Amino acid sequence: MARVVVAVMPKPEILDPQGKAVLGALPRLGFTGVTDVRQGKRFELELDGEVTDEVLAEVEKMAETLLSNPVIEDYSVSVER
Amino acid sequence: MARVVVAVMPKPEILDPQGKAVLGALPRLGFTGVTDVRQGKRFELELDGEVTDEVLAEVEKMAETLLSNPVIEDYSVSVER
Repeated sequence: MARVVVAVMPKPEILDPQGKAVLGALPRLGFTGVTDVRQGKRFELELDGEVTDEVLAEVEKMAETLLSNPVIEDYSVSVER
Repeated sequence: MARVVVAVMPKPEILDPQGKAVLGALPRLGFTGVTDVRQGKRFELELDGEVTDEVLAEVEKMAETLLSNPVIEDYSVSVER
């Protein structure tokens, strides 16, 4: 059993209304010092067996075809411990 | 300038219909070997200045009060390089 994390974030040039809403709410709640917020998605995948290069390539393919929209989002794959 | 990442995930005992939908879609797309999927949120916060313990405590408070719903979600705060 291994856990692989896929992080999906809006591309820098894409507007992010959710992130902007959080950024606008922070000062109203008394929080200062934050200059930008981006909101994205995080997927935790539990995998059978070892995380080989082949498995990671498979997860990259999942991230590209199912978990993200490559037109507006970037993704990154990382292995958790 | 520093970047702090807040990951918000549904608590283990909470149903996660989005994650289940992804899990169900994977075999239909020809992907095997994934035994569970959980979907959560990822926030990237750009901060003015250094990331001190005080700043991190402030971000923890943001995560608890604004970015997550502590009844159904867990959060974790990490500093990105």
